[in-house]
Parts: sequence; structure tokens; C-alpha cells
Amino acid sequence: MTLASDGTVYLVGAGPGDPDLLTVKARRLLDEADVVLHDRLAGDDVLATCPDSAEVVDVGKKPGPDGERTTQEEINALLVRKARSGRDVVRLKGGDPTVFGRGGEESEHLAAAGVDFEVVPGITSAVAAPAVAGIPPTHRDCASSLTVVTGHEDPTKAESALDWESLAGNVAAGGTLVVLMGVGRLPDNVAALRERGLDADTPAAMVERATREAEFTVTGTLDTIVERARRVGVDPPAVTVVGDVVDVRGRVAEYLRGAGATGAVGGAERPVSDNRGVE
Amino acid sequence: MTLASDGTVYLVGAGPGDPDLLTVKARRLLDEADVVLHDRLAGDDVLATCPDSAEVVDVGKKPGPDGERTTQEEINALLVRKARSGRDVVRLKGGDPTVFGRGGEESEHLAAAGVDFEVVPGITSAVAAPAVAGIPPTHRDCASSLTVVTGHEDPTKAESALDWESLAGNVAAGGTLVVLMGVGRLPDNVAALRERGLDADTPAAMVERATREAEFTVTGTLDTIVERARRVGVDPPAVTVVGDVVDVRGRVAEYLRGAGATGAVGGAERPVSDNRGVE
Repeated sequence: MTLASDGTVYLVGAGPGDPDLLTVKARRLLDEADVVLHDRLAGDDVLATCPDSAEVVDVGKKPGPDGERTTQEEINALLVRKARSGRDVVRLKGGDPTVFGRGGEESEHLAAAGVDFEVVPGITSAVAAPAVAGIPPTHRDCASSLTVVTGHEDPTKAESALDWESLAGNVAAGGTLVVLMGVGRLPDNVAALRERGLDADTPAAMVERATREAEFTVTGTLDTIVERARRVGVDPPAVTVVGDVVDVRGRVAEYLRGAGATGAVGGAERPVSDNRGVE
Repeated sequence: MTLASDGTVYLVGAGPGDPDLLTVKARRLLDEADVVLHDRLAGDDVLATCPDSAEVVDVGKKPGPDGERTTQEEINALLVRKARSGRDVVRLKGGDPTVFGRGGEESEHLAAAGVDFEVVPGITSAVAAPAVAGIPPTHRDCASSLTVVTGHEDPTKAESALDWESLAGNVAAGGTLVVLMGVGRLPDNVAALRERGLDADTPAAMVERATREAEFTVTGTLDTIVERARRVGVDPPAVTVVGDVVDVRGRVAEYLRGAGATGAVGGAERPVSDNRGVE
């Protein structure tokens, strides 16, 4: 049972990284926050806008089995403890809190503990990253579905839980596949799609640091994207896009304007000669 | 070639309906807009916040082959004409402009005409509708992918372009399927999923008017959702969700708080006895 004196936990999406892509509601909640618990993916630019008066706690989890700094159980317990101290809590997550953000798990824990919560959606990078790079996730002529998965699965799982047969089938049928946090597994994922019959010339792209400073995009095909991403040195966070919509970028890039106030450049392609990341 | 005196077209997402779920950037662009061209789905609450100084043009398209008021060709031409008159144009679309919003097509037309444009992402209802209703689109335990399609396909197409085999396969493999604008085709879509082998007890939900006043949610299974939606009278705009994540709602609803300032109630379920929409 919720006590009248308990606070509420707001599961808030921080969007893709540009603070201007916070929602008006998220902006207000942050400005008025007592306590902010944030992920690593919430982004430095957004975190820099938190008021000095708020208690800001980094509960970010690094990728991989060794880098976890705060366990999910600890985060859950902390959310409940802070709310029971009578303070409203902003639980800030990169993108949308419920799209590969564990918002669902945290909401279940809060409800089980009798703590009120509210979900404040944010813009997922699965949409924003391709969109600002001139790649529409859907298109009437060439993409009738959008499927989103994460390349950064539960590291305790022995093998991919993803059904690559259906994922490849969606793309073959004219859908778009977006892989969040897929830099490390790019070669595996491309191979999985090729093995399930997708053509080598299926368009593919990676968008690094979407909507943030020094954003850039590399395009290619399933045949070329691994090598191109390696040559230009794509680092996390990055989003992979597979499907015919990738080709739209080539048709619009000349007139595509940047993502705005943070200096993000939606249209730029880092020259391959730049050679960052090549051994 | 872009002339220095030409304006820029901003393809702006209005989000799911609650003006507080506009991005900070969309809010600023609207507040400063010379011209706003908007869709029907941009939502009355958002449109009510446009400044009196802006020229606001409704280019909304009603569903179905007969209701189209402004053709896409006319919209394309209008965007170019307004920009060439030297004014910046806000092209406002419900949700995200590039997720079933024709943002891709409009960007191609603008680029072909030599008009600068920028994509300002918005929150798609495909994420926001389930999220605010306590249904996380993904979940580490029960949803490793999210697939989004539209029930309101190109009416000139003779039959569904969707590959229901792959869509059902995604759900069977533990994915979530979200159908935007799927009220009219709900019985057909449910039948298509059942025919491809999804169990009758696969959880399903519809969320009507997500984040807006009088939002409500009805839950059930593929076996019951058509009848339940009919009995409570689900009207467009509504989002259909299929997958195990629907069951999360039942576990959290008691502590789920509403979507905020507009009076939207994320958690309420219209009583079946209400009987709205029953003949």
C-alpha cells in the first residue's frame, strides 16, 4: 500500500542524446527533481542540464559481464528507498525507458513494493538515429515494417535469443531492421542475416552518436558494412540499420540539415581516409 | 541549388498527443514558426499551442480511399512553395515524421527540389501508447524484439503487403508486435496471426487515445481482444499490442500513475459495462 508521504518514481526517457530532444515533460521533471538516478546512456549533454539542487546518482551499467557497477537489484532497492524517503525520483534512461531500458522490470519491482510510478516516454535512438541521418525507418515504397532488437543482449545468455530467421524474413519482405548497441556484434549479426538468405547487396548503415556532437553515418551493404565500419572506426553508442530505406540517405544528403543546437551533424560522413580505428 | 533566401523545412514529430510530450526542440520551432503544415494526427491539443502569429495549414489526410483532402503531391508542392517564399516551414506530423508519417517521401521531394530540410524526431505512439499503459514494448524476460507495422496501409494496394508469416514468427519467438492505426483491420490482423500459428491465448491489448484525455486500454488475448474491443467501443486513434509484455500491465496497474498534465489516465480501463459502441 502506498503511503501518502511516499514519493513517486518517474521512469523518464532522456531521448537519443541531444538535450533539445528531451520532452517538455522530461525537461520539467529534471528541472524540479529532488533525486535523479541515471544510466550511462542518458548522455553527458543531458546530465549537464540537471540542476545543482538535485541529488544525481550514476547507476550506469557498462556493457559486458565485468563492467556492471550497480546491479539491477541494487537499483531496484535504491528506487524504493528514495521514494519511501518522501522524495519524487526521476529515473532517467537513454532513449525510451521501456525500449531495451529495463523500465518494465523496474515498474514491476516498484509495483510489488507498493510505490507509485509513471512512465514518461522518450525518443528511442532506434527511430532518431536513422531519422536524423536521412534514413526513414519506414517508407511507403520500400519499408512496411520496422523491427528493433538489441545487439547488447543479456551477457549471461549462452547464445543469441533472437530469431534471426524471422528477422531476416522481415527484411526480405520489405521491412527495416534496427539493431541498438550493435557495434561489437556487427560481424555476427551481418553473418546471421546472410546465412538466413539476405542478399549481399542489402543496404546497411551505422549511425554513431546520433544527435550528439560528432555524429556520423557510414553506409554500405551487408557485404561492405563490416569493413567500412572498421575502417572509419565506429565506436559505441551506434545504431545499425538494415533495409532499402538506407538508400534514401544518398538521395537526400545534400539538402539534409544537422540536428541542431548541440552541433550534431546529421548528414556528415566521416571520410574513409580519416582512418580512425584502423590498426 | 538552394538559394540563400530560401527557408528550411523542419519535418517535426508532434509525439503521441500530449503537448508535454513534444520535444523541447519541437516546442521552440512551433513557438517561432512562420508556417505550420500539419496532419490530422498531430492532435488538437498540440495544435492549440501554435502561436496566433503562425500561418497554420491543415493538410490532414483522412483514412480510406475517399477521405483524402490534400494529396501528397499537393503537400509536396506546398512545402516547396512556402520554403521558396523565404519562410521556414514546420511540417508537423503525429508521432515521429519518419515512422509511417511519409517523412521519407517528403524529404526526397524536398531534396529533389533543392530545399534544405531537417528531421526533428518525435515520440512514436508505437512506443508511447504501450509504455504509458504499463506495457513495456521490450522486456528482458519476455520480449527481445519490437516490430511496428501500420494497419492503415496504402488503400490503393489490393492486399496486405505485410509478411504475416515473419510477423507471427517474431511474436512466437518472444517479440512484441505493435500495429498502429489498426482499429478497422483488427479482426483481419488477429486472424492473420492465428492462421500463422500464434496461440489463441497470446496476450493482446488496445490502447486508445494514448497520452490524451480519456485514454483507455483494453487487454485480452488473440481469442478475446476483437470482442472486447467491440464491446467497449475502441475508436481510432488506437494502437494494438500483441505479445507477452501485455501481461505486465496486470502486475503494475495498481501503482501506475497517469500521463500527466492533460488529464490523460494511463492506467484506466473503461468498464465493459460502459457498453460504448455496442449496437
